[in-house]
Amino acid sequence: MQRTAGELATLLSGVIEGDPTISVNRLGKIEDAESGAITFLSNPDYEGYIYDTGASVAIVSNSFRPSQQLPTSLTLIKVDDPYAAFAQLLEYVGKSNLFPAGIHPSAWIAEGAHLGDDCYIGPFVVLEKGAKVGNGCQIHAHVTIGRDAELGENTQVFSGAKVLHDCVIGNNCSIQAGAIIGSDGFGFVPKADHGFQKVPQTGNVIVKDDCEIGAATTIDRATLGSTIIGKGVKLDNQIQVAHNVIIGDHTVIAAQTGIAGSTTLGAQCMVGGQVGFAGHIKIADGVKIAAQSGVTTSIKDANVVYQGTPACPIKDYQQQQIAIRKLTRNHLFDRVDELERSQKNSEDQP
Amino acid sequence: MQRTAGELATLLSGVIEGDPTISVNRLGKIEDAESGAITFLSNPDYEGYIYDTGASVAIVSNSFRPSQQLPTSLTLIKVDDPYAAFAQLLEYVGKSNLFPAGIHPSAWIAEGAHLGDDCYIGPFVVLEKGAKVGNGCQIHAHVTIGRDAELGENTQVFSGAKVLHDCVIGNNCSIQAGAIIGSDGFGFVPKADHGFQKVPQTGNVIVKDDCEIGAATTIDRATLGSTIIGKGVKLDNQIQVAHNVIIGDHTVIAAQTGIAGSTTLGAQCMVGGQVGFAGHIKIADGVKIAAQSGVTTSIKDANVVYQGTPACPIKDYQQQQIAIRKLTRNHLFDRVDELERSQKNSEDQP
Amino acid sequence: MQRTAGELATLLSGVIEGDPTISVNRLGKIEDAESGAITFLSNPDYEGYIYDTGASVAIVSNSFRPSQQLPTSLTLIKVDDPYAAFAQLLEYVGKSNLFPAGIHPSAWIAEGAHLGDDCYIGPFVVLEKGAKVGNGCQIHAHVTIGRDAELGENTQVFSGAKVLHDCVIGNNCSIQAGAIIGSDGFGFVPKADHGFQKVPQTGNVIVKDDCEIGAATTIDRATLGSTIIGKGVKLDNQIQVAHNVIIGDHTVIAAQTGIAGSTTLGAQCMVGGQVGFAGHIKIADGVKIAAQSGVTTSIKDANVVYQGTPACPIKDYQQQQIAIRKLTRNHLFDRVDELERSQKNSEDQP
Repeated sequence: MQRTAGELATLLSGVIEGDPTISVNRLGKIEDAESGAITFLSNPDYEGYIYDTGASVAIVSNSFRPSQQLPTSLTLIKVDDPYAAFAQLLEYVGKSNLFPAGIHPSAWIAEGAHLGDDCYIGPFVVLEKGAKVGNGCQIHAHVTIGRDAELGENTQVFSGAKVLHDCVIGNNCSIQAGAIIGSDGFGFVPKADHGFQKVPQTGNVIVKDDCEIGAATTIDRATLGSTIIGKGVKLDNQIQVAHNVIIGDHTVIAAQTGIAGSTTLGAQCMVGGQVGFAGHIKIADGVKIAAQSGVTTSIKDANVVYQGTPACPIKDYQQQQIAIRKLTRNHLFDRVDELERSQKNSEDQP
Repeated sequence: MQRTAGELATLLSGVIEGDPTISVNRLGKIEDAESGAITFLSNPDYEGYIYDTGASVAIVSNSFRPSQQLPTSLTLIKVDDPYAAFAQLLEYVGKSNLFPAGIHPSAWIAEGAHLGDDCYIGPFVVLEKGAKVGNGCQIHAHVTIGRDAELGENTQVFSGAKVLHDCVIGNNCSIQAGAIIGSDGFGFVPKADHGFQKVPQTGNVIVKDDCEIGAATTIDRATLGSTIIGKGVKLDNQIQVAHNVIIGDHTVIAAQTGIAGSTTLGAQCMVGGQVGFAGHIKIADGVKIAAQSGVTTSIKDANVVYQGTPACPIKDYQQQQIAIRKLTRNHLFDRVDELERSQKNSEDQP
Repeated sequence: MQRTAGELATLLSGVIEGDPTISVNRLGKIEDAESGAITFLSNPDYEGYIYDTGASVAIVSNSFRPSQQLPTSLTLIKVDDPYAAFAQLLEYVGKSNLFPAGIHPSAWIAEGAHLGDDCYIGPFVVLEKGAKVGNGCQIHAHVTIGRDAELGENTQVFSGAKVLHDCVIGNNCSIQAGAIIGSDGFGFVPKADHGFQKVPQTGNVIVKDDCEIGAATTIDRATLGSTIIGKGVKLDNQIQVAHNVIIGDHTVIAAQTGIAGSTTLGAQCMVGGQVGFAGHIKIADGVKIAAQSGVTTSIKDANVVYQGTPACPIKDYQQQQIAIRKLTRNHLFDRVDELERSQKNSEDQP
């Protein structure tokens, strides 16, 4: 981006105080923004920073009255709600990162693949036979969309991500770089000779609308049927979703969590990073799981908070932690030794 | 796949009861299969589902006698062993996913690379100088086979996986999408100025026959010599195998486990997800490690089961867990306080 | 590599004892090196191995006096410091793995990308508009360098790694295969309908000089400003670095560790594998964290060692572990039961 303060004031329906011709090319935080950046002041606790910010432009409230001298290099854009205006600006900048529609000449689009209107198809992209890509999608360099896989509209697939055969992705999804959707589930049956025979994984993955799939996250296809990522689910980076898992709508999961096969998570759950879920369990709606927990059994009550390995209600977990610390701090072992000694002494007394 | 019930009955040496011309194009579970799917009934506990299944075709036992009215839309294929027949069908479908042999025109095969017969080489594949690919391999889009790397026969390498220079992969392996084989080991020596100097990693990775390497799993090359993945080893997604690790034959490891440098795992071990192994330790054959454990020392006894961090025999771990829960539930601290108070009182009495 | 003992003696300023024309093509460890390999003997504990090594050439100290008959097939290169000589050899071999400079005809270099001298640009590499690559870089197959991203000099980016738009990488870095630099940070704000709205991530990632970034490691771009990886930082494989994290100079982190958003790690920290750091915390310089720990709060004291979840000073952690084991081994619960019984008895006595 490269915009003048005047252009941005128009975008944000704000009023300029300062130089409307000054130009900015990036966003910054008020505490460390430098010349050429636009920032904002919303939280009064940060007001102190504005008096020596290096930013060229700051979005402030109409009601802002400086209590000190502002930097002379600073131009203000005054708006009703600086936080909302800044969110609007973020979205504007986000959209300005879209690539112009067009198909790079090096992309390989198989016969029988179907491509919607207004898509960006980057260099060395592969759309295999039967792949369908909806209108307005952005598919970056080195992406593969496998045989008979489908993308809805306005979905973005970033560099090197793979959507493998038969998988179905909804509208307005964001598949981050290096994500793998549709790798084989991990299914084997023992052979007579102590080895294992692979069970072919013939299902697919369905990712519904408005999902975020993080970088290097892997989602295995179902053995039969579908692994399902519900509407609006947000998966951070390096999450592992095994075959036949179902994740309910609007559930949010932090990085490096793993979900074993055939487990179902409810809607609107919130899961911390590095959590592990055992296979074949069921988690109710709205459950929260603290980071690094190990969830080994189903959780039937909605909206509870669990922590620890094995995960238990957070209050129990906290009491256990307190007890473990007390064990060493309170010299419990020594005290019981002493009680036994005293008792023995008193028994020995006539 | 798109096959009639009659064709599938022939394939499975079964007998049709119903419409041999009905066509199916996918597999389904009996509890949720829909029209156009073929399913099976093996476990008697699931018999109830067959009376209102939506599936078009079901594989059942020759001895199956319905106790209720079957759906009129359902055609049966009767066989001796429905589970075995379904496994055979899974394998048939799995094979039907193979790409026809051929080299995509966009692939880049360096001079001095050697390619066997009947291989599929997908778009934008790179075979570097000296790479050797055995007969019947399937190499999907965006795969690199590095300089002097070798693949055996009938090995599949899925989209975007990398087999880097000098690494050797056996026959009948399956390298899932995004796997990295042969990244540099993590080896550094301290420098005088508090920084670290990289130790060049000049060894390779050897993956023996019949291995599964999961999506986004990373296997580092040895500093010297080889990192070795034994015959029939099954590695799930996002596993990290450090330099000079050796994994014994037919060992199975679940997702997101990490094995630090120079550690050796025995044959036929089973390791849960998110386990960590310290470096330079040795695990005996047939050992089982529960999920999320941290194995910090060698395990010398074969076939034992360990759990926890630091990992210990599972019985000890379970007793520890029980004890921790008891600590809070039994009010142990309060009881010891009370004992001390009582004792003091009794001592204070004349 | 393929070099004669004589050539290598010249390289290492050593003296040949044996056959200067014998040729080696790889490095080996003295305990298992085979014919055609060069090895070294530095640690006297390993001297026993040299008397039946299969290696063709061994680097030994000038002061080495064999106590037994050496293999007749073995040629010695005598030097002042065999370990230093071997390190020099490792580096020589490491450099011999560099690809010759040149641009592969299949690479796609956008108009407005800038490429320095003496670079290797591999097959199907993408340099987007505005990308800048410094002199002497090696960019392997299937790498993307995004719009306006920059690499310093002599940096290596291995197969399939992605350096996304606006990110900045320093000199002499090594970005392993499949690493993702500049994926979107995981930032959302709640919507009225229980869903979440993505906050555009408009910052970048800065990786300073001399860094190692492991295979399949993911580093998210900042929401605003930069995620910063300090000079000389070494990140192992499958590490997750969230948006706005700052890692101090020369910090080393083992595989599968995750660092949540806006956390700052000091300089010269050492972090084990599978560690988790909560967001918005600050870790002092020189702190060491044991593997699998969960760091939930800031650590203000430099150079301390922490372990456990929640992480605490390692001495406290060890005492807790001892106490937990004692709980079950010392029959503490039974002993307290017994004390209560005895006391009750004594009270019941007249």
